[in-house]
Amino acid sequence: MPAAVTRADIEAAHARLRQGPANFLRTTPLWRLPGAALGLACAEVWLKLEQLQVSGSFKARGMLHRLLAQPIPTAGVIMASGGNAGIATAAAAQALGVRCEVFVPTISSPAKQARLRALGAQVQVVGAAYSEALAACMARQQETGALLTHAYDQPEVVAGAGTLARELEEQAGGLPDSLLVSVGGGGLIGGIAAWCAGRCRVVALEPALAPTLFLAREAGAPVDVEVGGVAADSLGAKRIGEISWRVTQQHVQAALLLDDGAIRQAQQWLWRELRLAVEPAAALGLAALQSGAYVPRADERVGLVLCGANVDLAALA
Amino acid sequence: MPAAVTRADIEAAHARLRQGPANFLRTTPLWRLPGAALGLACAEVWLKLEQLQVSGSFKARGMLHRLLAQPIPTAGVIMASGGNAGIATAAAAQALGVRCEVFVPTISSPAKQARLRALGAQVQVVGAAYSEALAACMARQQETGALLTHAYDQPEVVAGAGTLARELEEQAGGLPDSLLVSVGGGGLIGGIAAWCAGRCRVVALEPALAPTLFLAREAGAPVDVEVGGVAADSLGAKRIGEISWRVTQQHVQAALLLDDGAIRQAQQWLWRELRLAVEPAAALGLAALQSGAYVPRADERVGLVLCGANVDLAALA
Repeated sequence: MPAAVTRADIEAAHARLRQGPANFLRTTPLWRLPGAALGLACAEVWLKLEQLQVSGSFKARGMLHRLLAQPIPTAGVIMASGGNAGIATAAAAQALGVRCEVFVPTISSPAKQARLRALGAQVQVVGAAYSEALAACMARQQETGALLTHAYDQPEVVAGAGTLARELEEQAGGLPDSLLVSVGGGGLIGGIAAWCAGRCRVVALEPALAPTLFLAREAGAPVDVEVGGVAADSLGAKRIGEISWRVTQQHVQAALLLDDGAIRQAQQWLWRELRLAVEPAAALGLAALQSGAYVPRADERVGLVLCGANVDLAALA
Repeated sequence: MPAAVTRADIEAAHARLRQGPANFLRTTPLWRLPGAALGLACAEVWLKLEQLQVSGSFKARGMLHRLLAQPIPTAGVIMASGGNAGIATAAAAQALGVRCEVFVPTISSPAKQARLRALGAQVQVVGAAYSEALAACMARQQETGALLTHAYDQPEVVAGAGTLARELEEQAGGLPDSLLVSVGGGGLIGGIAAWCAGRCRVVALEPALAPTLFLAREAGAPVDVEVGGVAADSLGAKRIGEISWRVTQQHVQAALLLDDGAIRQAQQWLWRELRLAVEPAAALGLAALQSGAYVPRADERVGLVLCGANVDLAALA
């Protein structure tokens, strides 16, 4: 069983990332608003604008950390991903000047493939489904010996993601009362929950059509689930990561499901009213508040993590 | 000749705005990045994310301030504008619960008219050109006695805009070495220059196709200019405001022109690389830096004001 990630691991990740390539990772803004500014009956809403992170999502933290924490062979780094983790890995590899090979299924969009190539990655398009691309990636890794990077279930990846919560706490001089965090494979919430470790209420949010952590909690263990819906491209992991599972069992107080309509509505509201352009996965926190799925206390300071902005702008119009 | 706006006026505006409707104006984030993070050879770039202001632009500061500073007749407030000033006035009037009538020319887009109506404004569509809408607005104002609001050339409007610079200084604990500010009619730069008053280098930026301040400086006095180009909807004032003219003559060190290609490129860069969706007017600062029109010193901290995000998202894709 892999070691669960601790606060000390995240401190170490923070220190290691500071030694990494200059001016790559960004300290993203924390925007504190009165709840009433969003039409909500709570004291404050804290928006961590992590969609402004390099590569357009929080993934850059974990991917760069993995690459800094392990020796990188001449063959470079290799992974299977058509989404934010692939883009973040390619960006981190480019910043470090190492080779990067990314396997994507044929269904991945030409735009995403072009973006990976623009970041210097060698893109291999294999198979109709992600599982086939992953199998080809594993076979190739055996052949080249490149460093394999997982989108969420490696300790360095989770610890890297956890630096987001450390940064937020530093910016505000403390934690909010609650943090609402979107869950795909669990890398982000694993890191955040490990950092908070009971000092603030951490709530997991998933699309009802991608209930990876929710069903694991019901079953008492990670299980394979069917995934789909508007946020599937970033929250569509079929199984919660082992590391995240262990951390969230200890430090996540609730897991809630949101329907696609509420997610899309919150995403459009963020653009229309706040001029924040984000992907569906980043809108789950606001969707939970606006739909009433999560009801904060009147004096509560609620933190939302806007985790990514790799979005087709047409969806916001 | 109208009184020029001073730092004391801006302090007073700040105090008055704090007494205004709760949770309307927002304290917008200030994002400090190393210059190298934007590929620039200067120490720091400070991005004031004012495009996140309520109504989608800085205009809300000045418009609300005007409405708070003057008694509002039963007939409410009236103005002629198809752009950000109209939207901001309608939003401020709605927050105060007063009537709002906005005159727009027939060329103004149905989308903008719909947005004004959604904010509770009564929209009057008159004439092919802005000047005709303005004439109709003035005649109507004589009839109703409503409070006339100007998009930029009223002291309360300029002082309200100046609170942006006050807020920025408070957030950073000081001013940057230079501030690059887009100019249409001059309300924003008038307020910013009045606040800075020689304590930091303030540089005026205009599209080459809307050189309102630039040509006034050449002529030694405000002159009517032809305006057009990609930023005309927000920077297309035909003549610099008298108040702004007086302030900028004292406190603006340089005025630069930028071509539409550089502006559009910077606007697209801001989305592609930083995930900031802004209108063309908000991209002039970065365009000046990326095109070499403004060359900062190596140790310079350059501030850019992202002034608005009322943009057709298709332009960013």
